[in-house]
Amino acid sequence: LLLLYLTGGLSIPDPKQREALIKLEASMQTGGQLVLTDTEQRLDARLFKMKQEELEREDFPPAMHFFKARKLIRNSPIFKLLQKMPKGGALHVHDFSMVDVEWLVKNVTYRPHCHICFTNDQSIRFIFSSQQPKPLPHCSLWTLLENLRAKTVNTTDLDNSIMGNLTLFTDQDPEALYPTQALVWKRFEQIFQAVFGLVTYAPVFKDYLYQGLSQFYMDNVMYLELRALLPEIYDLDGHTYGKAWALKTCQDISKQFVANHPDFVGVRIILTVNRWGIDIEKMVQVVEEAMALYRDFPDIMAGFDLVGWEDRGRPLWYFRDALSLPVDRGVSLPFFFHAGETDYQGTEVDQNMLDALLFNTSRIGHGFALSRHPLVKELSRKKGVPVEVCPISNQVLKLVKDLRNHPAAALMSEDHPVVISSDDPALFGASGLSYDFYEAFVGLGGMRSNIASLKQLAINSIRYSSLTPNQQEKALSLWQRRWDKFVSENAFW
Amino acid sequence: LLLLYLTGGLSIPDPKQREALIKLEASMQTGGQLVLTDTEQRLDARLFKMKQEELEREDFPPAMHFFKARKLIRNSPIFKLLQKMPKGGALHVHDFSMVDVEWLVKNVTYRPHCHICFTNDQSIRFIFSSQQPKPLPHCSLWTLLENLRAKTVNTTDLDNSIMGNLTLFTDQDPEALYPTQALVWKRFEQIFQAVFGLVTYAPVFKDYLYQGLSQFYMDNVMYLELRALLPEIYDLDGHTYGKAWALKTCQDISKQFVANHPDFVGVRIILTVNRWGIDIEKMVQVVEEAMALYRDFPDIMAGFDLVGWEDRGRPLWYFRDALSLPVDRGVSLPFFFHAGETDYQGTEVDQNMLDALLFNTSRIGHGFALSRHPLVKELSRKKGVPVEVCPISNQVLKLVKDLRNHPAAALMSEDHPVVISSDDPALFGASGLSYDFYEAFVGLGGMRSNIASLKQLAINSIRYSSLTPNQQEKALSLWQRRWDKFVSENAFW
Ligand SMILES: [Zn+2]
Ligand SMILES: [Zn+2]
Repeated sequence: LLLLYLTGGLSIPDPKQREALIKLEASMQTGGQLVLTDTEQRLDARLFKMKQEELEREDFPPAMHFFKARKLIRNSPIFKLLQKMPKGGALHVHDFSMVDVEWLVKNVTYRPHCHICFTNDQSIRFIFSSQQPKPLPHCSLWTLLENLRAKTVNTTDLDNSIMGNLTLFTDQDPEALYPTQALVWKRFEQIFQAVFGLVTYAPVFKDYLYQGLSQFYMDNVMYLELRALLPEIYDLDGHTYGKAWALKTCQDISKQFVANHPDFVGVRIILTVNRWGIDIEKMVQVVEEAMALYRDFPDIMAGFDLVGWEDRGRPLWYFRDALSLPVDRGVSLPFFFHAGETDYQGTEVDQNMLDALLFNTSRIGHGFALSRHPLVKELSRKKGVPVEVCPISNQVLKLVKDLRNHPAAALMSEDHPVVISSDDPALFGASGLSYDFYEAFVGLGGMRSNIASLKQLAINSIRYSSLTPNQQEKALSLWQRRWDKFVSENAFW
Repeated sequence: LLLLYLTGGLSIPDPKQREALIKLEASMQTGGQLVLTDTEQRLDARLFKMKQEELEREDFPPAMHFFKARKLIRNSPIFKLLQKMPKGGALHVHDFSMVDVEWLVKNVTYRPHCHICFTNDQSIRFIFSSQQPKPLPHCSLWTLLENLRAKTVNTTDLDNSIMGNLTLFTDQDPEALYPTQALVWKRFEQIFQAVFGLVTYAPVFKDYLYQGLSQFYMDNVMYLELRALLPEIYDLDGHTYGKAWALKTCQDISKQFVANHPDFVGVRIILTVNRWGIDIEKMVQVVEEAMALYRDFPDIMAGFDLVGWEDRGRPLWYFRDALSLPVDRGVSLPFFFHAGETDYQGTEVDQNMLDALLFNTSRIGHGFALSRHPLVKELSRKKGVPVEVCPISNQVLKLVKDLRNHPAAALMSEDHPVVISSDDPALFGASGLSYDFYEAFVGLGGMRSNIASLKQLAINSIRYSSLTPNQQEKALSLWQRRWDKFVSENAFW
């Protein structure tokens, strides 16, 4: 058709040919090849109308910062539908920002033996301990939170202030509060430190994971792949546990959760290490550890990744010797590299996506810069390596302001392999996957993405998971049943 | 190479192969196929170093709003080099925002018989008249500016206030002043109204064009294609002149300017009409008028276009009968449509780029949305229809915030036909082409774009102009001489 058009001479455009070209282009997008049932088409018509209304609103949520848009999104009928939709798996979520901070404060910090201290740089730290803990440098003395609360007139204010220290989300103007990438990343790291003492306490570590699975499950997500640091876990009496213990615990929690929720598939773990402040020698150790864990815990362990602010960390290529170890030794260790989470072009860091592919990564985390790399894009497509798109994360971390303008919109317009995920929902004031699905569907997709796009995204999240082909088939048929139910329940109104 | 890599099994990446892939990708970008002279390579090495220093600065100008970045850019050594660089032609500039507003205020409003009035919506209007002009609705009575200035203690304040009414540029926070696209476009239209009475006064009309050519010439631009409304021009005594007169005048001024500056090629005019508030019947008249002018003034008249806020105007397809007239009647009228200046996807307006191509447009103005349209992109590439990229305009009109993230970065990474232009430099506080070249080179290009990109962009601006092949050859050889001089003068330091 395209050729036909190109060979044609100077003539008035034929409306039918024009219509055919528009349809042809629409068929190239994510989900464009799916054949829809009548009921799906009905639901699609409904979604189309809902979107038209959404676009006519004065404040268009995807054009706004998520912190300002969240309230609008919550009230959006499209969002409510997306919450109900079975979305498949969440493949890019970090271990300690799965659960909303309210739960952390209202549940975790109210547990016995929770101590708090206040750092010189306006942050807080926590520790659970049966005795008075040793003081931290650059920090006030530890106070038992129970005692502090008893002395405080307004504990609501105290709790809100704690909560504010555990998330980037704010009611203030986010542009004013986080004017630069450097500042928002700094705050990000601070929050991580603050959360750390809470979630690495053994009983909380277990409950947090269970609670995280619950929240994703409630959001109609059926499977999770967690980027997890698996840090040292501690007890009340100062006893500590290593990665193997943590991994085993995740496995137990996952089994327990699946036993209680048979339509949930489980969780798998991608071991991560911060790319910042680690040297090659240490990286070799970590990769060796990852290989051992992958061998010992094949069911729960999915692979390995580097995390942290990419622009300021070492590029993947710097660690090439360490990352070559598995192939060198003929040992299997799948990679799931964060790569291309940058706005800079042509820097060393900007080659991370290429290097991720050269190291046979299974997926690319973010790949925000992919559309600016035609050859890497082609490689990723040909190898079937999907990009994990996390719209809200990219906006909050200041890679893009208006989500209509997110580069993955171009990727989705040509059905590049993508999955949608939420990265650190608790830190962004989101939860589960629905907010990111909303941004992808309404913002990135505009009037063009449709029920087929949503269906394809859900299918992709299973197809591109680290589950075995057998497990994928099982998960897909489970998903399909729930999908059909969702469609038939919502197609008529 | 790509295939070779894809067929390879699981192995450690070969550094040589990796280097080859990186080079292969670099060769795909704008200018990637050019073979550089030794001197060009030297200049390139210098530019690379300058860019590295620019990237290390705390405030990276392309990541900031241009109104805040302008001062930094002015002091950038790269910018100073780009000013000296022969940039070829400016193919997307509007008639009444070529000249900086200081000239308008300091020169034009100081001419005799200049009257001013103040509108109810906080704007101003001007008229030159030998008698007291008839009052405008929703406006104060006309005051002779000369008298007003005589009565004013601080004329500098008055002049600054007038200036502020003639440009979007501001020292205030642009995000706060123009929070939405609707507001910035509203202000845009207001300014246009304010400027109108000044620049449609016959003597000013001539001087403005001459001054505009001077400013672009000073910026080392050798050729201009102006989008021009060619509105009614008036005299002191209320005499008025039509489009033919205006076109003839442009031609005279162009000739006069070329006579005084033999290394300038001239100006050509693309007649424009606002897509907003025009019906089909009127559009038919305008197209007929354009055909007649194209026939009568083949030297100066380049073609036809629609302007104004695309999201709120009728789509091109709405005017299909009018736009089909030239082909219908076997009459020639090249089109240069603004299209795809939108963040919304899948709307009617979002089909403008496709329709522009179906109507055989010679270039696409902005094409901001092109990277999200794989089929339209392919068409534009195959037909050799370039996109006129105006980075600062897109940022000020709120399509994109951080220019590293401009979608044309992807287009340039794959050598899609593009030219760089400045749209409405006076309204944005820019001038000539250098600021937009800076943003394209440092922002869109990052560390990747190089001297070859710049060279290719300059060549593109001649190759994709409406000049005849003969004129293009002449212009290119003129440009080449100046380019060689520029390169040899700046390669060593
Ligand atoms: Zn992540
Ligand atoms: Zn324009």
